[in-house]
Amino acid sequence: MALSILFLFLFNFILPSFSHPFDPLSPLEIQIVTSTIKSNFNLTSRLTFHYVGIHEPNKHDVLLWLANPRSPPLPREAFVVARANKQTHEFLVSIADGRGTIVSQSVYRGSGFPTLTFEEQTEAIDLALKYPSVVSSMEKRGLNVSNVVGSVFTIGWFGQAHNETQRVVKVLFFYKESTVNVWVRPVEGVETVVDLDQMVVTEFQDVQRCVLPKSEGTDYRASGMRPPFVAETKPINVVQPLGPSFLVKGHTVSWANWDFHLSFDMRVGIVISTASIYDVDQRKKRQVLYQGSLSELFVPYQDPTEEWYYRTFMDAGEFGMGSAAVELEPHHDCPSNAVFFDAFHGGQDGNPVKLTNAYCMFEKYAGNIAWRHTESAIPGELIREVGRDVSLVIRTITVIGNYDYILDWEFKKCGSIKFTVSLTGIMEGKTTPHKHTSEIKEEIYGLLVAQNTIGINHDHFLTYYLDLDIDGQENSFVKGKLTSFKTDGSTPRKSYWSVVREEAKKELDARNLPNEPVELYIVNPNKETTIGNQVGYRLIPGPMPRPLLLEDDYPQRRGALCDHNVWITPYNRSEKWAGGMYVDRGHGDETLNIITQRNRDIWNKDIVLWHTIGFHHHPSQDEFPIMPTLSGGFELRPTNFFERNPILKMKAP
Amino acid sequence: MALSILFLFLFNFILPSFSHPFDPLSPLEIQIVTSTIKSNFNLTSRLTFHYVGIHEPNKHDVLLWLANPRSPPLPREAFVVARANKQTHEFLVSIADGRGTIVSQSVYRGSGFPTLTFEEQTEAIDLALKYPSVVSSMEKRGLNVSNVVGSVFTIGWFGQAHNETQRVVKVLFFYKESTVNVWVRPVEGVETVVDLDQMVVTEFQDVQRCVLPKSEGTDYRASGMRPPFVAETKPINVVQPLGPSFLVKGHTVSWANWDFHLSFDMRVGIVISTASIYDVDQRKKRQVLYQGSLSELFVPYQDPTEEWYYRTFMDAGEFGMGSAAVELEPHHDCPSNAVFFDAFHGGQDGNPVKLTNAYCMFEKYAGNIAWRHTESAIPGELIREVGRDVSLVIRTITVIGNYDYILDWEFKKCGSIKFTVSLTGIMEGKTTPHKHTSEIKEEIYGLLVAQNTIGINHDHFLTYYLDLDIDGQENSFVKGKLTSFKTDGSTPRKSYWSVVREEAKKELDARNLPNEPVELYIVNPNKETTIGNQVGYRLIPGPMPRPLLLEDDYPQRRGALCDHNVWITPYNRSEKWAGGMYVDRGHGDETLNIITQRNRDIWNKDIVLWHTIGFHHHPSQDEFPIMPTLSGGFELRPTNFFERNPILKMKAP
Repeated sequence: MALSILFLFLFNFILPSFSHPFDPLSPLEIQIVTSTIKSNFNLTSRLTFHYVGIHEPNKHDVLLWLANPRSPPLPREAFVVARANKQTHEFLVSIADGRGTIVSQSVYRGSGFPTLTFEEQTEAIDLALKYPSVVSSMEKRGLNVSNVVGSVFTIGWFGQAHNETQRVVKVLFFYKESTVNVWVRPVEGVETVVDLDQMVVTEFQDVQRCVLPKSEGTDYRASGMRPPFVAETKPINVVQPLGPSFLVKGHTVSWANWDFHLSFDMRVGIVISTASIYDVDQRKKRQVLYQGSLSELFVPYQDPTEEWYYRTFMDAGEFGMGSAAVELEPHHDCPSNAVFFDAFHGGQDGNPVKLTNAYCMFEKYAGNIAWRHTESAIPGELIREVGRDVSLVIRTITVIGNYDYILDWEFKKCGSIKFTVSLTGIMEGKTTPHKHTSEIKEEIYGLLVAQNTIGINHDHFLTYYLDLDIDGQENSFVKGKLTSFKTDGSTPRKSYWSVVREEAKKELDARNLPNEPVELYIVNPNKETTIGNQVGYRLIPGPMPRPLLLEDDYPQRRGALCDHNVWITPYNRSEKWAGGMYVDRGHGDETLNIITQRNRDIWNKDIVLWHTIGFHHHPSQDEFPIMPTLSGGFELRPTNFFERNPILKMKAP
Repeated sequence: MALSILFLFLFNFILPSFSHPFDPLSPLEIQIVTSTIKSNFNLTSRLTFHYVGIHEPNKHDVLLWLANPRSPPLPREAFVVARANKQTHEFLVSIADGRGTIVSQSVYRGSGFPTLTFEEQTEAIDLALKYPSVVSSMEKRGLNVSNVVGSVFTIGWFGQAHNETQRVVKVLFFYKESTVNVWVRPVEGVETVVDLDQMVVTEFQDVQRCVLPKSEGTDYRASGMRPPFVAETKPINVVQPLGPSFLVKGHTVSWANWDFHLSFDMRVGIVISTASIYDVDQRKKRQVLYQGSLSELFVPYQDPTEEWYYRTFMDAGEFGMGSAAVELEPHHDCPSNAVFFDAFHGGQDGNPVKLTNAYCMFEKYAGNIAWRHTESAIPGELIREVGRDVSLVIRTITVIGNYDYILDWEFKKCGSIKFTVSLTGIMEGKTTPHKHTSEIKEEIYGLLVAQNTIGINHDHFLTYYLDLDIDGQENSFVKGKLTSFKTDGSTPRKSYWSVVREEAKKELDARNLPNEPVELYIVNPNKETTIGNQVGYRLIPGPMPRPLLLEDDYPQRRGALCDHNVWITPYNRSEKWAGGMYVDRGHGDETLNIITQRNRDIWNKDIVLWHTIGFHHHPSQDEFPIMPTLSGGFELRPTNFFERNPILKMKAP
């Protein structure tokens, strides 16, 4: 096994990478792009890079290129968001022959700010920790300042609550003495506001003298656990004696009947593009997904008090699901048969930052069954056929402060693509003087999960951007409404349900509320199976509870991506962000709720499916000091895409 | 590995089985019980056994016995349902010293009939296939009678549609020439009704001359597939070099922190009893589940025409989820690290029937993560802890004619119990003259999935019986309603949600409609964590679409188990069947909907949770000729049951 993995790496290494228009910027390209900007930009204040990524070429060009793999590579362009002179600058830079040229440059004047950089967060924390009032507040509390750590909190948008032109965040404090679980030991009452552009503390307050919950029982490291231990189980592993079945050339992946391009973006993490599936009946590859990724992640906490009300995070746009992705641990974060890949993104200073083991790829076999049947209706014959369910998983894990998001893409041989979101990590704790629920008379906005610690209620809403191109660019969205009918009384049966097709002609027709009995299809209205069904894929939606904030509450305006679980828009290269491009302190002017109000035509157009799944989280003690994983997901499943179940033409491994 | 599995088997074999009150009847016990009935029963017509199973001892006695494992075994009693003289007889038989004694005997006079036996189904089919009118109908169609096979269809209840005192079924016909996929080649129009008590054909009709869909492309056996093949992948396996971690003594299972009893019942399949989990903080085992199993499975088809309207199956009560369980295939139905177990049930003649590999047990590792965190808030330290998610699965597969149900119980170290239902097998096809959708002008109640074949719309509703005993017998049901609140305006935030606890005092308070933002808790109101939270488990419900039949339609009255997704009843040894005990042609007089109308007290009582999950199935071509598995499930998750996440006290394997 080791040999074949080695071979795979060598193979990748030795072969010239296949160039694909969606290949992420190489470290060299990042360097070229940011140097070009630096050398052309008249610096009067410091310049910070907040996004450096591939500028998606025109779709028409990409599809032409794909149709002829021997055609020359498409021109490379980068899109850059930088901050200088208290302004947000957007650049388009072309890269050719090792040199960059600025194609366009503009200042963004709308609401909201770019994604925070890792470096400025670190700088802001350092600044706050050294701020004399902070030091004296900590000392007044009898805390060892060297054991105090900080974390940056974006503050959302609440009308005039803060000066709208200032790019400010809060830095809050936590105590790491005797535990690494800082999140359950906030030093409450001490707050600083830091202006990230000027890198100065603009506000300080020390209003409370809250208790510091004890550290005992909060550490989660195996090395910190003391006996007794229980319930040891024996080793278990997934093995592939002949190595993995996937082939990776550059950023292009082939596995079983699937081919796709795999990229990594600092804002959204994994991006899958130009995914097609081989159809053995048609003897050709057929397009399924032009591009898909997570788009935004909205996490509103449900404590409206002064210290917590603003915690209404938009994790992708504020922190970067790619730049906050963590190094994956072999054998643990991914099984032993996984292969790991590094990624690069642009750092604040413009230099490439390497993220080791940014994502992994592995074949998954959980003992599940892809299809089976035992036939007993034929006397004298035993008929039993069972197909094992082996799939391909691409995993990345992003940690936003306390929360760990495990994000899986899963390709299945039957043609399905499954998406799984798993939540773990540490609940954000709020301190309380109470040690027992009997002492609590007031609303605590959560649950007492340990002495002096409240786990605060919150939500996670994740919106995926899925530009499906089912067998071609022009697609349509159809709701198959399961509808009750009364019979005509000709049989003793009084009722039945049937599927009433509703074709969505305009954006507003397509919006969907979760939990209705409806089948949701993306079809190609120009393509039929041989017996006349529209080829398509079906969305099997993920969990999606009703959002519970008032519609006109500020967080809900910014997080309107959860007003519906399904939205359809006509493809527009610039519309990728369910909560808008600049969500840090943005006003929600560009959410899905706003952009779909134009109510554009979507029938037989190049359309994009946006799907939101969500979790309400009311904490419990069993999630303290670390949370057992909670998972949810959804599936895109071929529905009259194939003439018949394609899996029968695949020999079981 | 082979050695250690061998050792495990030997170990089981050599050790005297631990006797547990819920141990299924041994083959010898089955023989004793049925012989006792036969020899005491005055036979004037044939006697057929429809259920032979353990009669659950009094719960009080079981708990006393469990508390003192050295106490003598409880008396063994069997419950038997037999059919003789066109009557349904119920027997209670005690077994002691190798002899049986009839304790009670009665005739059931309500609506409905017992579960069909495998033998009488075979006999009815044989009878129908030899029935002269059937033979001549087949010959008239030019069919080779030796290629015609039959299958038994229960006919539901539709008022006076059939004589209510006759235990009749339909036998329908299928053609096996050139394919083993008989379900897509029905010989439509020819129908027989067979009286199972008299074993005579009572009705015959030949009304249609439907087409017979072609056999080409319908076979699903690997041996029948012709090249080209695509998408081969390399071998993959789950290995446990030191063998499995579970220990099975008799029918008692220990794994990780779990202990439970595992039995197999001919009506419902797997039964898990007296499940407890070791709590390392309390240094003791704590009760979780007194008993749980599938209760009923309701499958109404949505074609109201004469030939299909009656297809409204109740699979557990009509066919037996245990007696219709199929032999599991090692390495395919369960992964290579699985251990397989046989089961026995009573045959129609009273003799024990052995079911080889009736269920399997394996540790599951799918590459998932049980919990993790990467901490980056502490400068200069890399903190990353990842727990792999290894669980214990018990699997059985039941095939009811065309459909295969894969039913998994999964125990997790964090205290969760997960239930997964996976649907595969073959769609029931209805023939049509149409070869292309453009020819279809009428309602076809499904989708044209191949030339001349309609996949008919249908549902699957599964109700589980879950007698949770959280830390003791007296439990309560609490709905935590997530409720929107307006703020008092003291901060810029306008709204938040909070959990409003609603205690269900009576049965009707507890019924729940799916998809509401509500947390569903079974708590022990007499037990608190040290910080004062009621100990409990939470139900994370499974998928549950609205049922779409009219409330007063006959199938919906029988299948009222799907009116709500959650029901709570006070424990009553005789209430185990969500659709009633005798569902074949029953009137729905004992469904959950009826029994909860008594509106009994359920607060701080020994209560039972019933959970219904469901799937609407509108077929597609990609599911022809065999269906890719579709899965759904639910979870019972500890919620303030533990003082803290118990998984930290387990060393990762």
